[in-house]
Amino acid sequence: MDEPINLVLFSGTDDKLQAAAVLAAGAAALGRPVRIFLQYWGLDAFRADRIAADHGLAPEAGEAGAAAVKEALKTGKGDWVATLQAAKELGDVDIQACSLSMDILKLAQSDLDPMVDGVSGVAAFLINAGDGQMVFI
Amino acid sequence: MDEPINLVLFSGTDDKLQAAAVLAAGAAALGRPVRIFLQYWGLDAFRADRIAADHGLAPEAGEAGAAAVKEALKTGKGDWVATLQAAKELGDVDIQACSLSMDILKLAQSDLDPMVDGVSGVAAFLINAGDGQMVFI
Amino acid sequence: MDEPINLVLFSGTDDKLQAAAVLAAGAAALGRPVRIFLQYWGLDAFRADRIAADHGLAPEAGEAGAAAVKEALKTGKGDWVATLQAAKELGDVDIQACSLSMDILKLAQSDLDPMVDGVSGVAAFLINAGDGQMVFI
Repeated sequence: MDEPINLVLFSGTDDKLQAAAVLAAGAAALGRPVRIFLQYWGLDAFRADRIAADHGLAPEAGEAGAAAVKEALKTGKGDWVATLQAAKELGDVDIQACSLSMDILKLAQSDLDPMVDGVSGVAAFLINAGDGQMVFI
Repeated sequence: MDEPINLVLFSGTDDKLQAAAVLAAGAAALGRPVRIFLQYWGLDAFRADRIAADHGLAPEAGEAGAAAVKEALKTGKGDWVATLQAAKELGDVDIQACSLSMDILKLAQSDLDPMVDGVSGVAAFLINAGDGQMVFI
Repeated sequence: MDEPINLVLFSGTDDKLQAAAVLAAGAAALGRPVRIFLQYWGLDAFRADRIAADHGLAPEAGEAGAAAVKEALKTGKGDWVATLQAAKELGDVDIQACSLSMDILKLAQSDLDPMVDGVSGVAAFLINAGDGQMVFI
């Protein structure tokens, strides 16, 4: 059970980010290392100047779903930034920004929230992942 | 080949649900246990009162894609509820609702279709999954 | 590190196709076999008559994101067709169309780009994948 879990975080809506954060927190609580690789809109969501902003939901949420998520947030349920910060304090959670996505979105690491530990390429991510679990979110 | 396959079912559109059901049915046919964990809109799609409803498609389907899917359904191709029920009859397919998503969407197990076997937390899902395949849909 | 990586390519927007192509190219560069299984809109994107067309982006891209992706493409960054072709030249990258999705979208293999190596069912894909990494995109 101490195998790393590797998450490719492509999506940047608050519901998928929360799904990722819950997996990361669960794995960290079980003592498993977590390796997160941020691409495209998943990366965009970690910009320091708007990480706390409303990033919307998957289109399929609909009005009722969106209202339920908003209501839950008022009681602190489903806040992915808080969940991920807790996961980082609890265990070994490393967050890397994909260098190609950084190029495409014209970002520097100083544009990103301090939760992001570094910038790296896909080869490094794949080598670290080995043949461990890889989850694309 | 008797390793379990673990599906996190986040999405609730009929096309992604069908993709998940096909993987589950294929694995069950090969004698592999299947563990499905329902989150957010994937969970919402299993509400007893609307599991058979039209849950829409991914936005990228477009008009032509949506028409093709609708046409195929008339001949019984692409019906995820039927595919998943067949998978459950064929093999060992366990479907658990994520307790956190149940909270967020204010659902009780009695609100869900009987195909759902229970409610559990992410830690239990991760422990069961071990380092087996984990597929996020 | 010579374990195959198995990608189920469901999504057909240019950003997700590029994320898939980058994983495939990275794995191929590391000498790992790559097995891609095309379903639904991922399959639709490989139609010979419009593989080079604009397939749009995930809805969450927004205007600023879409502009950044378009700008990067002008300098050759983020072109998934070119990235995937390079991956195929570099290593062992096999692309199979899901037979069920072919049925639903009423496609024949002659409708598809020559990058697609064949058509096969989900059972064959799962047997080839064994308990190796499986990534749903």
